[in-house]
Formats: sequence, structure tokens, C-alpha cells
Amino acid sequence: MRAGCLNAEWRPRVGFKLGSKDVEGKLTYLGSKVWRNPRVEIREKSVPACGAEDVLIEVKACGICGSDVHMLQTDPEGYIFYPGLTAFPTTLGHEFCGKIVEAGPQAYNKRTGKPYEIGEAVCAEEMIWCGQCKPCCDGIPNHCERLQEIGFSIDGAYAKYIRMNARYLWSIETLRQIYGEEKMWLLGSLVEPASVAFNAVIERGGGIRTGENVVILGGGPIGQAACAILRHSGATKVIISEPSKVRRDMALAIGATHAIDPKSVSVADAVLEITGGMGAAIILEATGLPGMVWADVERIIWEGRAVNTRVVIVARADAKIPLTGEVLQVRRAAVIGSQGHSGHGIFANVISCMSAGMDISGIVTKKIGLDQVEQNLVMLQKDRDEVKITLTNLD
Amino acid sequence: MRAGCLNAEWRPRVGFKLGSKDVEGKLTYLGSKVWRNPRVEIREKSVPACGAEDVLIEVKACGICGSDVHMLQTDPEGYIFYPGLTAFPTTLGHEFCGKIVEAGPQAYNKRTGKPYEIGEAVCAEEMIWCGQCKPCCDGIPNHCERLQEIGFSIDGAYAKYIRMNARYLWSIETLRQIYGEEKMWLLGSLVEPASVAFNAVIERGGGIRTGENVVILGGGPIGQAACAILRHSGATKVIISEPSKVRRDMALAIGATHAIDPKSVSVADAVLEITGGMGAAIILEATGLPGMVWADVERIIWEGRAVNTRVVIVARADAKIPLTGEVLQVRRAAVIGSQGHSGHGIFANVISCMSAGMDISGIVTKKIGLDQVEQNLVMLQKDRDEVKITLTNLD
Amino acid sequence: MRAGCLNAEWRPRVGFKLGSKDVEGKLTYLGSKVWRNPRVEIREKSVPACGAEDVLIEVKACGICGSDVHMLQTDPEGYIFYPGLTAFPTTLGHEFCGKIVEAGPQAYNKRTGKPYEIGEAVCAEEMIWCGQCKPCCDGIPNHCERLQEIGFSIDGAYAKYIRMNARYLWSIETLRQIYGEEKMWLLGSLVEPASVAFNAVIERGGGIRTGENVVILGGGPIGQAACAILRHSGATKVIISEPSKVRRDMALAIGATHAIDPKSVSVADAVLEITGGMGAAIILEATGLPGMVWADVERIIWEGRAVNTRVVIVARADAKIPLTGEVLQVRRAAVIGSQGHSGHGIFANVISCMSAGMDISGIVTKKIGLDQVEQNLVMLQKDRDEVKITLTNLD
Amino acid sequence: MRAGCLNAEWRPRVGFKLGSKDVEGKLTYLGSKVWRNPRVEIREKSVPACGAEDVLIEVKACGICGSDVHMLQTDPEGYIFYPGLTAFPTTLGHEFCGKIVEAGPQAYNKRTGKPYEIGEAVCAEEMIWCGQCKPCCDGIPNHCERLQEIGFSIDGAYAKYIRMNARYLWSIETLRQIYGEEKMWLLGSLVEPASVAFNAVIERGGGIRTGENVVILGGGPIGQAACAILRHSGATKVIISEPSKVRRDMALAIGATHAIDPKSVSVADAVLEITGGMGAAIILEATGLPGMVWADVERIIWEGRAVNTRVVIVARADAKIPLTGEVLQVRRAAVIGSQGHSGHGIFANVISCMSAGMDISGIVTKKIGLDQVEQNLVMLQKDRDEVKITLTNLD
Repeated sequence: MRAGCLNAEWRPRVGFKLGSKDVEGKLTYLGSKVWRNPRVEIREKSVPACGAEDVLIEVKACGICGSDVHMLQTDPEGYIFYPGLTAFPTTLGHEFCGKIVEAGPQAYNKRTGKPYEIGEAVCAEEMIWCGQCKPCCDGIPNHCERLQEIGFSIDGAYAKYIRMNARYLWSIETLRQIYGEEKMWLLGSLVEPASVAFNAVIERGGGIRTGENVVILGGGPIGQAACAILRHSGATKVIISEPSKVRRDMALAIGATHAIDPKSVSVADAVLEITGGMGAAIILEATGLPGMVWADVERIIWEGRAVNTRVVIVARADAKIPLTGEVLQVRRAAVIGSQGHSGHGIFANVISCMSAGMDISGIVTKKIGLDQVEQNLVMLQKDRDEVKITLTNLD
Repeated sequence: MRAGCLNAEWRPRVGFKLGSKDVEGKLTYLGSKVWRNPRVEIREKSVPACGAEDVLIEVKACGICGSDVHMLQTDPEGYIFYPGLTAFPTTLGHEFCGKIVEAGPQAYNKRTGKPYEIGEAVCAEEMIWCGQCKPCCDGIPNHCERLQEIGFSIDGAYAKYIRMNARYLWSIETLRQIYGEEKMWLLGSLVEPASVAFNAVIERGGGIRTGENVVILGGGPIGQAACAILRHSGATKVIISEPSKVRRDMALAIGATHAIDPKSVSVADAVLEITGGMGAAIILEATGLPGMVWADVERIIWEGRAVNTRVVIVARADAKIPLTGEVLQVRRAAVIGSQGHSGHGIFANVISCMSAGMDISGIVTKKIGLDQVEQNLVMLQKDRDEVKITLTNLD
Repeated sequence: MRAGCLNAEWRPRVGFKLGSKDVEGKLTYLGSKVWRNPRVEIREKSVPACGAEDVLIEVKACGICGSDVHMLQTDPEGYIFYPGLTAFPTTLGHEFCGKIVEAGPQAYNKRTGKPYEIGEAVCAEEMIWCGQCKPCCDGIPNHCERLQEIGFSIDGAYAKYIRMNARYLWSIETLRQIYGEEKMWLLGSLVEPASVAFNAVIERGGGIRTGENVVILGGGPIGQAACAILRHSGATKVIISEPSKVRRDMALAIGATHAIDPKSVSVADAVLEITGGMGAAIILEATGLPGMVWADVERIIWEGRAVNTRVVIVARADAKIPLTGEVLQVRRAAVIGSQGHSGHGIFANVISCMSAGMDISGIVTKKIGLDQVEQNLVMLQKDRDEVKITLTNLD
Repeated sequence: MRAGCLNAEWRPRVGFKLGSKDVEGKLTYLGSKVWRNPRVEIREKSVPACGAEDVLIEVKACGICGSDVHMLQTDPEGYIFYPGLTAFPTTLGHEFCGKIVEAGPQAYNKRTGKPYEIGEAVCAEEMIWCGQCKPCCDGIPNHCERLQEIGFSIDGAYAKYIRMNARYLWSIETLRQIYGEEKMWLLGSLVEPASVAFNAVIERGGGIRTGENVVILGGGPIGQAACAILRHSGATKVIISEPSKVRRDMALAIGATHAIDPKSVSVADAVLEITGGMGAAIILEATGLPGMVWADVERIIWEGRAVNTRVVIVARADAKIPLTGEVLQVRRAAVIGSQGHSGHGIFANVISCMSAGMDISGIVTKKIGLDQVEQNLVMLQKDRDEVKITLTNLD
């Protein structure tokens, strides 16, 4: 089978020291300190063999994630942008779904409580949690101490087939009848990013009580999915702040009740006006630019009459956040970090929401084949109007 | 002004002892042990005067509650059905809304953070919690140790005007623009029963994560409102069990996704089939007939694959519940009692949901004037098709 | 090595049907419907071999559980009492600890975040959760859909050695320095039953806020451990009800502040008096006789001024509980089922409490060797004064 | 009666604008912008009269709070340090307890559920929450929109008598028998600061599960009380960081298991070593110097293996906190603001803990009379070894 791989040279920067879990020449937890001159290679690989708990999945759709873009993007010295866990060469792709074409006898289907059958439509978690460490055994797999990641440190789904241990899979069969097969695959490939949003606003942010208001900062795929999830949860005002008109319109179509352009209005003023001075129960930081948005975040909390606001940080950023402790104190507020999408029933809930009408397939703005991966990864280094480009032809 | 009062004779049954909070000839916590020969009297009363924290409200709509029916209904010896706190004669009516026509200088509007202005549309809690006892000071006013109740122990809203301390009021002005004034009043009078449902399924039942399934047993006003609230919260399957076709159709219009007739099908079988064998996150017991429904409740829990089911008891009943502890153990389930509607932000959230499109005005099946109160209270002793009869002419 | 096994004849009762997970002649989920003429056999077995994630443990202490007694105890027709998952012959014993003598390369030590080293002192969960089903992936391993149990359906620890997948192990090394090796082993063998208590009162019962009161019904090992855990959590009054004086005295030594003999006083009266009329935040049903204690449970809730009481059912019982829904409603109370001990950080917290002085080794009232197992299992069918008999000589 | 009052001149700084709730010449929410040349005046005042819900309390002990010091302390231009709600002249003192000497007929005793009796020992909340605004009605009185404060904007307890509405009182009678009257009064005056700590670590920080570790930064009265409360809640390691040896020793006596001097060791290194690399469930910022401690806070979270750490900000500070969002994300952590002590059952729980042996009277390092107030307020502007100075002679 053909596979869209990322390759690069192991050229550690001056001063880099191999970490305790790093493997010389192969794997590091600090990608941007090591890998240079990345390139996409379409390689011919053999179809992986299944173990007892494994299934083989024929990939039907796989979205391009911002991380994929950052693995090919380089700084002036040729080092990749992506700072995290990486082992090259690896097949990219982790936002995928597909059809079971082979299943080991111990590959258990969580939907049916029985072994997987051939033909079942499934999507998958991206985080290969170990199930052995303390966080895993405590029920917190997003913070596994021995995490591997599909499409980063082990082969991903920019390929015709992928092998997965069944524990990371979730059936999307309930979507087939409602949406038809084609849209089922699109939605299936969006379960992973939507689960990142669900983990952020529901699991980590504590969710809302229906009738509360929320603010989403940033209209990327996570922000878009958060709008859909919170509106579906009964938020009264779902306000997104996003500079791109395309993305604002998408958010309004998917779940936002109000969309603000932060370049033309004060976000805090707008939120306070829309909410009648109340503010929000949850503010999701999904821009990756905390320094740029934080003054508005604190004004919404400070001037809004709602207490108990939770600010959830879902986008990664190097910049420090200039936090005013007194704002949290006087308004009974909190700042909460969010990472991952696994555990806590999240995938199943996202799929169930989709089955009940939460259609976020509009996030996909372009469909491509394996041969267009490289040019699209390059294009996405600059483009802001495409929200999600998805591989739907993996042959 | 004219007021629709309930009067009865203080004739304690043999063996009745005055309780520590009872007042001889006037007030008791055990109505059905004391009051005999009840009657509705339309009395002429003077408009109450406002204190510093009070407002005077012109009543625009007031629903008839089942409790009102039970205060007029009698057993063979002439004692009233209603077993609780009562002080007669009293003006009935506690599910109401209206317009502020007078406001004391300390009457604070929770919507604006300023004193009430004339003309504001408001609804009210029925529970006159004291704000001084331990539960009140701990933030649990539904369990106030010195509770008084509008329309039971103090004058209610079957009258042109009612005086209330502003702390029990909640503005419904946000509904005016969306629904127009007439429907605003109908919805306003439904906030109280909807808040009983909200307290049951959200505050006490712990709410749901969007994507979960729920079961509502009983299609009275509380069950209907629970369907609306849980669907608005993003429940995937909202299944109501109710023998009356009129009420099943209403539930489907208001929020249920599925309606079951328990006389013709097995409730447990139906729920397990509809949910693909999963069962439910919340089961609301709103029938008042726990003995009749409990076998189905336990089968849904036992056979459903969902763990963590919460059964919330909202309807009052004398009968014991034949609980199987092992069902709760093996399925990680719980049985939870629910009482009241005050505190916890409930009224504000219900009104906010209504402002976001949760229109439950279809619960009102008939509108009447003050002079039709008595005949309708009598009619409701037998009728099961009227869900909510509402006084909209209080002159 | 020698191993204390239970064997019995597969003789299904009339009408028994093989369940979907049962295995003809070998394994059933309904032990008392199938197994007849049980007997203890001391067998010679080979030391198990370790897989990559496994360790081999030299057993240092293993407690006798009530379940072990019920596997040997029979009804008049010779069928075993124990109603659950069983596969005979099997080595008994699941409340154990010991020393690592061999470790696979992937056997990960949750304490250190590294592979296990030879010599580490560990205890183990009894529940072999699969890590693949929906409850496991949702972080609720106590409700695994494919559970196996050590000492019931797979070989246990009445033997010199036991092999375990490392995921079920928890290091007790922190106890060595504080208690010395001998007491470390005793405490280690008590972590499992203490974790059942911790799961009941903390995870399922919601724990307490320091300063609240609790009631424990039943002074078996779980009730004893619950006293210790809740006192260690800062409960003000820890009241145990238990008819045996030996067990009452033990509870007072281990953590109870008050011990009541339910044969000589009214439990509800005593609790209300001791708590100054407040009642309790948590009531633990650990007697297995809900019909006998329920009237007191409801009186404590109804007459106590504390709201929010949680009654946690931890002991198994066939009898129905005559639940009064109104008690739960008026007092904002709940009845909660509890099963198991895995997940939620429980084992680690119990061990940490022990390291901070929560010494429950007094629960062990007798130490025996492998050859005394049978006679003690028989003796325990009647005795109520021994609380925990522990095998400390496994040669 | 004599009363220790604070007086100052209303001299708004240039540019100050009267806030919407400020009262010209009398009351401001921004003390340090308005009040100049403060002075302590011992005035002769008449004993206040009781209303129906009021009691008159003979003050038995009243602690000096840091806020009291800051009301007398001035900047070079003569403006007071204290930045908050103030109305001068006012009697100072808000950490007090005393004996009921007069009680209105509606003054309800939360301990007994009956009217207050003469002689009852009580302490009081300092926050005069209105009971009418949305936060109050939602059960969050610490964020009352119309807060008044004893000893700041209304007369406090540096006087022989104080009048209070009974809703703010909590009986300390349970302490009398255990500690004797003299220590009862000392403890009673410490309930208010201990409740600030309880609100921070238990209500806002979510409490701990017994067996977890905690870190307290700062050994003032709040930090000291937090050590006691968390140890009483069963924390395994209670680590305080505090530069003063006197305060470290006090913490070790009151509840800390380990005390660190941040001037001589790295706090993060010490915490990681003491906890075996785990870190802490709760870190309490009680220094008021977030910039100084934050690097250690983040290292404890980042390098500690515990996930879910909550950092609770209880001390006020103007400085920004340089927050690294990624630390919260990767370690599943949160930063939470805490304010106040009212509601949520806090006072009752603190008193109950004291009745169960949580003796924090050692926090009081000096007892004085009314005539020594001024000199001690001045002395405390510089001293760091006195922790709590308490007025025990109010004549």
C-alpha cells in the first residue's frame, strides 16, 4: 500500500541532550530541537498484520491537523516547527475513520460488547495510552506517562490501511443510517478534533448548565467543534471571536449564536453587550495567542456579573499569560488546562451527539487524495480560510 | 381586589397532636389530618402594602397545580387530600407571573443589579425560605427549616395583586421581545414547575453530558418540562412513558424523542431497544406510582450497559419502593430524592433556556378566569387530558 | 510449589442454562447454581512463567475473605453458597501482598515510573479488568464487562508464588520504613479490603468534608476499614453499629469515635443523640441485612437535621430494601450502590494513608499457614469474633 | 461602651471619581484612593439596640487582621494602604466571638433550630451578604453584589458589645466542654480566618482525598489554618514554605508535616523530594507575592507526577502572575481564585473540626486590651513574628 510519510534528518541542535525516553537517531520528545530538513515521501509499505486484540482498518477519511503542517514547516535553520513527540520516518495522519477489514479474536467492540465484525465503521483515538501507568490506571489516559501518538511516533492513517489495538476504536455505525455513508466518513474523521473540544469544555471546563453563556476564542477546528458541542448542550449565547469571515460564518452555521471580529470590535464589550452584562460560564482559549486575548478574557470576567467563569486553555502557546489573581478571586473564577481527547466517555458522547443531529461536517472545506498531501501541507502554512482539509482518497 | 381563597374547618382527626410549629386553629404541617369541608371562596381583599424590600405585582397568569386540586378534594370523611403545610383561609395560587406595579426602595432586581422599576415582568418562587436557618445559609433553600409557602400558608396569586419580597422574584423581561407579551406571561407562569423539573434532573440528578440518554416516567407538567430541559441540554434519546396519548403527543412536541405507552408495551424493553441496549443516564420518577414502575426502572439499569444511572424521585408517593441494592451496586447506580425549585441559579437558567427557544407554553391546555377556578379544580380531580389550566384573567 | 485450591463438581441445578459467557464444565457467573460438593485441596503446582508485562510475586500474606468461606460452605443439597463468578479448580486467595522475584521488561512500576525491580513489596487488585471494554476505557474498571477475578476464576494467592500483570499492582514500599517488614506485609494484605471501603465511602459516597459525621453499619473488615478511612479524613463523629463486642472494641481502636450495640439500643436514637440531632453525611450499609437496619437508616435521615445524606450500599444482600422515597426527597438524600476497589487512584491513596499513620493491622486477629486453611474456612462459617484470618506462611 | 474606631479624612486623590455605590464623604470601595491621615480613636458609643432578627453580643475575643493594620498604615502622601470597602469613622474588628446578652424574637440559632438563648457562645461571619442579589440567592454569598463588611463599612467588634443579625452567627457551644471557656473564646475568634482557609482549600480548591499531599506557601494565619485543616482532612504530606522560623515551628505544631525555609532551599526541590516526586494535589498561594513563588509553583506541577493539581490563590496581590498555560495543560492543572468565608457550611465545619481536636489556638501569640490596639497596629506594620494578636479585654 502507499503511505504518506514524513521524513527528516536527526541533527540535534547544539546543546540538545537526549532525554530519558528519547531514542538516539529515532525518537524524541522535543521534535523542533532535533529534526531538520523535513520532507513528505509517498512510500510503498506492506499492510500490517493483526494481533489478537488488533483490527485492520481500511482508511476512508483522514483530516490534516495543524500539527501535520508544523512537522513540514521549518525555521530559518531548517528545523521543524513541531516541538513534541516525533519518530521519523513515520506515516502521518491521526484524524481518521474507516472500515474494519480484519479483526483479531480479542478485538472487542465497545458498541456491541462483542468481538468486532468485518465492515464496522470506526474512528480512533490518536493517543496510544499504555493502560499500565498511574494516570492510565486512575482513569486519566490523556496524561499517560508512556504515551505514543499515531502519525507522530507510530504509523498513522495517510495510507490505505492502518492497524490499531481495538481499545482505541469507537464505532460510528449509528451515523450510517442518519447521514448516509459518505457523510458518515466525513463526520467520523472529525470525531477526534471534536473530542479535543469536548474534553476541553465538558470534561475539563466542567460543562455548562443549559441556559448559561459561553465564549470561544478562535475559529479553528477545535473552536468550531466547541461551538457545536456547547450549543448542543443548551448554551444560550455561544459567542465566537475570530478574525476570518469564512470561519465566523462557519461557526454561525455550526452552532455559534454570535460571531465577533476581534479586529473591528472590542471582544469584551461585545460579549458584555450580547449577554446583557452577565459574561460567560466558560471561555475557551483556542487561539494560541493568549497575550493577545487575555485582557479581554479578564475584562469579561471582571465586568461580567456571572461568577464561576472557567477559562479553559486548549491551544498550545509558548507565551506567558499575564494573569491577574485578583480577577479570579473577586469573580470566583479559574484557569484550567486541557490536553487530549481520550477517556471519560468522550468519543462515545461526541458520536452520540452527531447521531442526534450535531452535524459538523461543514468544518471540512476541501477533500484531497494522497498525492495532494504535500502541496496542501505547504499551502496551509499560510492559508487561514481552509478550516479542515481531509484526505478522502487514500489509494 | 377579588381573591380566590380556600377555606376549611379546623377539625383535627382523633389522635392528632399539634406539632411544634403548628398554630392552633390556623396552621398545620399535616393538612389532611386537620382540615375538613374545604371550599373555594371568592373574597374581596384589600391590596397589600409594600415594605422596603417588597414589590406589588399585578398577576398576569397563574397555573393550577395538582396541590391546589388536592386542597379541595376530600376523602369519605370530608378531610382534604393535601397532606402538607396549610393555613386557611388562604388565597390559592403559586405558579404565577406578572408586572411590577409598586416597588420598595430596597427591592433589588437580580437581572439588573438595581432596584426594581415599575413595569418589569417577573415570576416568583413558591417557597418562602427564611434565609436564616442552616440549610438557607448553606445555600440549600429548598430545605429551609422554617419554610412558608405561597398559596398554602400565605396568600397566593389567584388574585389581581400579590405582594412579594423581591428576593423570591426573577425577571422574565428577556422573553418579551422573543415571544411577545401574551406568550411571555404564559411562559412566566410555567417557570415554577419547570424549575421543579430542573432541580430534579439537573441539580439533584447531576444533569447529563450532551449525548447521553434519559427516561422520564410520567407526562404531567413536571415530566413535560423535564423532557424539554433534557432535550435542550443535548440528550440524544429523551424517552417518555405516559399512558395518555394527549400527553405523549405533547411531550413529543416539547422535547421527547420517543413516547411510550406503558399500558401497551414493556417500558424496559422499549427503552433498551431505543437506546441500542445502553439504558439511560437519568431516569425521572414523576408518576407518583413507584410500585408500578420500579420493576421497569431496575430492568433498565440492570440490563442497560450504561453505568452511573441516577434515578431521581420527584413525585411524592406514600408507597414504599422495593429497592434491590444489588442493582445499584452492580451497575454503579443511585436513587436520589428531589424537592423544590429554589436556589442554585435554577430560575434564571430556566428563563434563559426559554429565551433560547425552549418554548413549553404548549403545556397550558386551557385558560380561565377567576370565576372558573372552582369548577376546574373539581374537574381536575378526574381529568387526565388537561395538563395545565392557567388563570389569565384575574380581575 | 504448594497451592490451596478449591475444587467442586460441575452439576448444574435443574433449569440452569449456560450463560453467554459461561464455559461448560469450567466457568460460570452463577456459582451457587452449578458447583456441588466443594473441597479444599492442597495441590502441587508449577511456578508460573512471566510474560513481558508480568511479575512473579512471592506471597507474604494473604487474608481469608468471606467469599472464600462461602465457596466451601454448602446448602442442604450440597451446592456452594457463593453465587458469583467461579471456575474450579482454582487456587483461592485475593487479599495479598508479597515481594517481586521476577519481572518482565514491560512490567511498569506505578510508584517509580520505571520497570519493576526485584525485591519491591507490592499488593494487588483482585479485579482483572480488561482495559478494552467501554467502562474500562471510560475509567470505571470496577464495572468491566469482561471481568476475571483472582482466586475465583483464575489462580489466586494461597500459594508461594503468584503471577500478575503489573497493571494490577501497587507498591507498598513506603510502608517498610515506618512499620518494619512484618507489619508492612500485614498492612499490604489489608489494602484490598480497605480499598473496597475507600471506593464505597470516598469514591461512591462522595467523601466527606472534614467536620462532618458518619455512621457505619456492620463491623466486618469493610466496616472496620471504613471507620479508619473516615476518621483519617477528619470525620468528627464516626459511629459504628455492630453487635459483637470484640468488633466494637476493634473499631474504637481503629477509628470509630463511638460504637453502638444494635441489640441493646436504638441505633437511630443513639446516632441522633451523639450527633446533637444532626445525623450523618454518610451512612455505610455494611451488614448485608438491609431489612434489619433500614428503619434506623431512614430515621437518622428523617429526624437528623443534616441534609444531603448519602447511604452507600457496600454489602451484598438478596433482600429488597423498603425505601421511602419521601425521606430522600424531604432530606435531599440518596442511596448509592458500591462495587469493587479498582481505579480512581484508590489503592495508592489507601497505601498513602497507611504511610501517614492509618494503621489497620489490628483487623488481623489470627495468622495461619497453608495447612490450616481448610479448618479455618470451616470455622469461619460460624464464628463472628475473628475479623480477619491471614495466611502468613505460604510454604 | 468604649469602642476602638478608625477615623480618617475624606480627601480623594486627584482624578478619583465617585463610584456608583460610593457615598460622598462617607463610603468608598477604593479606600486607598480617598482616605488620608488615619488615626485610632477610642470613642464612647451607646450600646446598639436589637431588632427582631438581631442579637447583642458581649465581645470576648477579637483578633487583629492584616487589613486592620493596613487601614492605619499610610503611604508617603498620607493615604491609607487598605484598598477596599471602607466607611469612616467605624469601629474596627471582625474576627470575634462572644456571648449573647440579648436576642430578638426572630433571632434563629442554627445550632438548635430555635431562637437564641441568652448566654450562647457565638462567632460571626465578617461579610454582611445581602441575601437578595443573584449570587446570594444562588448560594454564593462570598460574591454578594451588595456586600457590607463588619469593621470596615459598619461597626465592628473592638468594643464591649456588637449587634448582629443572627443569620451571620454560628454557635461555638460545642467547644466549651472540650476546651474550657477561656480557650473556647480564643478558638472562637479564629473561626473567621480559619474559614477563609477552609473556603480556599476545601470549597474552592475541591478538597483532597485522604492520602494526597499539599503545599502551603506562606505561614500567616490563613496559611497556618490551612495546614491544620488539610492535615485534619488526612493529607499525607502537609508542606509549608515560610521564611520565619517562628511561623514554621507554629505550622509544625498545628498541622504541617514538613516546613521549608524558602530563603535557604529550593521550594520545588524540597517538595519533590518530600513527596517522592509526586508533587501536590493542592498548592495554596498565601504569600501575596505570586511573582516570587510562581516559578516554584510551576516546577512542582511540571516535575511532579501527580496530575490535577489545583493552585488556589487566597492572598491578594497587585502583581501579575506569569502563568505558563502549557504547564496547566500537560499536567491537567488549574489556577483558582478564592475570596471570603461565608456559605457552603464552612463555619459549621470549622467549628466541628475544632470540637474534634483541631486546636489552632497556638496561632494567637499575644493577648491585649482595647487600649493597646493602636500601638500594636503600628508594631504589626513591621513585625513578622507575631502571628495573631487578639483583644481579650474589651472593657
